[in-house]
Order: sequence, then structure tokens, then C-alpha cells
Amino acid sequence: MLSWVDGRPAEAASVTDRGLAYGDGLFETIGVKRGRPQLLERHLARLAEGCTRLAIPADLTLIRAELLAFSAEVGEGVAKLIVTRGEGLRGYASPADAKARRVLLASSFPAYPAVNAEQGIRLFPCVTRLAEQPLLAGLKHLNRLEQVLARSEWHDSEHAEGLMLDVSGRVIEGVYSNLFMVRDGRLITPELSRSGVAGVMRAELLARAEGLGIPVAIEAVSQAQLLAADEVFVCNSLYGVWPVCALQAHHWPVGPLTRKLQRLARDLLDC
Amino acid sequence: MLSWVDGRPAEAASVTDRGLAYGDGLFETIGVKRGRPQLLERHLARLAEGCTRLAIPADLTLIRAELLAFSAEVGEGVAKLIVTRGEGLRGYASPADAKARRVLLASSFPAYPAVNAEQGIRLFPCVTRLAEQPLLAGLKHLNRLEQVLARSEWHDSEHAEGLMLDVSGRVIEGVYSNLFMVRDGRLITPELSRSGVAGVMRAELLARAEGLGIPVAIEAVSQAQLLAADEVFVCNSLYGVWPVCALQAHHWPVGPLTRKLQRLARDLLDC
Repeated sequence: MLSWVDGRPAEAASVTDRGLAYGDGLFETIGVKRGRPQLLERHLARLAEGCTRLAIPADLTLIRAELLAFSAEVGEGVAKLIVTRGEGLRGYASPADAKARRVLLASSFPAYPAVNAEQGIRLFPCVTRLAEQPLLAGLKHLNRLEQVLARSEWHDSEHAEGLMLDVSGRVIEGVYSNLFMVRDGRLITPELSRSGVAGVMRAELLARAEGLGIPVAIEAVSQAQLLAADEVFVCNSLYGVWPVCALQAHHWPVGPLTRKLQRLARDLLDC
Repeated sequence: MLSWVDGRPAEAASVTDRGLAYGDGLFETIGVKRGRPQLLERHLARLAEGCTRLAIPADLTLIRAELLAFSAEVGEGVAKLIVTRGEGLRGYASPADAKARRVLLASSFPAYPAVNAEQGIRLFPCVTRLAEQPLLAGLKHLNRLEQVLARSEWHDSEHAEGLMLDVSGRVIEGVYSNLFMVRDGRLITPELSRSGVAGVMRAELLARAEGLGIPVAIEAVSQAQLLAADEVFVCNSLYGVWPVCALQAHHWPVGPLTRKLQRLARDLLDC
């Protein structure tokens, strides 16, 4: 497996890294095709926002260059980029001379069953709820125990994704994806000001939908609203869009707006 | 700096470790005196509970043996033990063959100002609130971005610790410590069922106080109750007990029960 640490081939990073100690960092999971990282600007923009909000002194120009060079070596697959606050011996206080660490990991592209995109997926109803922490909401940071717990709730292959609510019972996202629904021709996705990860594909679809004149809303979504939706789908930056056809006994049809955005995502990821 | 990975001297761990990827693990910070880890049974008990709750398949007998051998090499100082779920390439799902990783890091004992223990400390009023996540509350897990954010709020040396509330405004703990207060002869510490770290020294003091016939309560604590307390102190397993003498304009006297428990903690850490 190909991996780089701070721009050089390496399989290990210092045990004093604050990423290991505190999850003090961010990550991006990026599809790579024909040696190029997909949705590069969106990934870098989210990373930059995360670095600003966590005050991680990362050199985004350097990170872009490393990501491009790494992707050229990967060719086809997935590049995972981890950016941490760097090393520190003990204590939560950031060292004055903190220097952001970059880790790049390659893996092969996941072998998603074609049926997921074609016929849609079933959502597993996760019991693990997302805590509400406005200071971290939206970021793809390294504190991901909630997702680890949620993903441990099911072991069958019948469910391709799990539905996560926040501790107040609002619908937020999938374990690996963002969630959208369609109601009366309007595209709706949960607002992520208290929990959740603001995905790159979510941002891209929101921008494209607006550009196409589709009414878009980012708002709180209740479980009742989700069940009453005309269409539901999940998205992420690797597979694009998967229709959601079922949650327990409830079924949704695969609708026209889902198909339209699915084609759009496919085109984005093909280029 | 002395460090071990999986029982052997090493300065780096695999970049595919789930501790780095997701903060998928736990840690203990353990004082070492005359080659022996302090409060060993309490640390191991908390670690065991954390491994059970997170379903991390750790070998506690092996961890005990490694910790004892490591402490003998350290002599005097601090041993930080990190236990992660081990390696995994990508995805939140735990690999079927997950093997817990142990990282041990030595550092010198912190040079705490003597005035902290003697005259008491000022608490910084942290704006960063603790999210409420019952599934993780009490654990000393590796998802510590809230503490990193809270500790970044002050840079002066006037404040030795920060006060953390939860998102509902309840008093929970210090950034590095647990908090106790005394009211009408009763020893009170915040309950930690929704957030916070259940410290080893907190558990020890609660057990000892009960043994001494001191009325003890573990309950929700409001900011008003904290201000109305007769005595306030913080504790952790390295320094024992520090009286709290001020929070902004509010002052507390250093009281007799604080001094009694401080002596008790000192005796515990001296042996």
C-alpha cells in the first residue's frame, strides 16, 4: 500500500503526533481517476475551512502539490489525506511551534454493488445518536468514535448505509454520507450547524441544483418529514448518489430528481 | 524520549492505525515513582471499562505487564498509555481481525508551581462547552478536540485550569481534571453520564471519602451551586488535589475538607 508522511514515502508516523493523541486534525477521502484527485477544489476548500476553525497552521499550497503528486502515483483508487496539528509531547495546549503533519494513504476503489446505484439501498436505523457540538459541526475532523459506534451496529450486507439522528432526534446524515430528500419538487438536506459532516458531494449537489433552478432548502429535518418525503437519497464523493428505497418497513420510490442528480454526480466523478 | 509500540521500543506507529484515523481508542496518563506506576489498579480498571464499552479487544494482562516493565525503565516521571483498536485501511467498520495496539510514552514529571497546591488556583471560564454523548461519557477516549479547543482559550500563566460546562450549562469538570465542591459538610462532584472524563483520582477520592464517613453526592451541578459552594477543588492523578480559590470575580476560601483530601491524595501518590 502506498503511503506518504510529510511528502515522503513512509508507513509510520511519530507516536507523539496529536492526531493519534487527541484526534487533533482533519481528513479528506478523495477519489482518484487517471492520476487526478476528483473534486479537488471542494476538498481543499473544506480542509482549509477546517484548518481555520481548528487553528491548524497548514500550508494548503504544499498540501495541494503533495496531493497532486500522490494522485499521479496512485493512478486509480482512493487517496485519504490526514492533516494533524503535528507533534506534541503531552497536554492539550498547542505547541507554539506546531507544524501540521500530512499523511497520504492510497487504497483501491471500493467494489460497490451496482444494485446500490441502480435500485437503491436500505438504511439501517442506527441507535447511536450524534452529539450536538456547534464548534465541530460540519468539519471532517478525526474525532469519529460516534461513526465507529454507529457502524458497529449492523453486520449484514443488506444495509449499505446507516441513518444517524442527533441526540434531539433530528435526521442528520448517513454514517458515510450526507442525506437529501425531495418533497413537492423541493430538494432538502439537513442543516449541520450542531452535528454532522458537511460533505463535498453535498456542497457540489447543492450548488448544481441551485444552478439548475431547483428549489433548495437546508433546514432541520424531523423523522416524520423524512418518512413523508417523495424521494430520499444519500451521497458522497466516491460513489456519487445512491437512491434510498427503504428504512425498516418504510419504502420510498426512486424518483426523477434523484436520477437527475445521480447522473449529474456521475458526470462530475467521471471527468 | 522513551517510547514503546506493542511492547517494543519504537518512535512511530503505522499510519493505518485507527487511533490516528478516528481517535478509535483510549488513553491513561500515569504517574511513575521509583519505577512503579501510581494508582495502577484504578487506571487498569478504567481502561478495561473503556475497552468493554468501545468493544476494543485488548489483552489487559499483557497491558499490565508492559506498563510495569515500561515504568521500571522510566523510573520517575509520567507514562502515557494509548490503546487503539489497531490497524484498518479505510472505513469505520472494525476489521474482524482487529488487534489492539499499545503505545507507551514517557515524559518527565510536570513542574507544577508549588503555589497551586498551597494557595489554590484560578479557573479560566472556558467558552467551549462539552457536547452530551452518553455513549462516550466518562471514558478517557482519544476524541479530545473539545479539550484542545478549551485549552486554546487562555495563554496566561495566571490560570492553571479551565472550567468546562456542558452544552446545557451544567458544571462538568476542568480541562485536565475533575471538579469537587463542598457544601454544608457534603462532598459533591458532577455526575458524568452525558459528558466528561471519570478520573482515576476522582474515583479514589470518592471511595476514600465514603470510607471516612464524609457524606458524598454525585449529582448535576449548576453554575449557581458552584458559586454558592463553601469549598471548591480540582483533582487529577498526577498532582492530586489543588484548591480552587477564584473564578473571575468570585472567590472561595481554601477549606478544611479540601486540605484533608489533599493530604490524602498526597499520601496516595507518595507511596
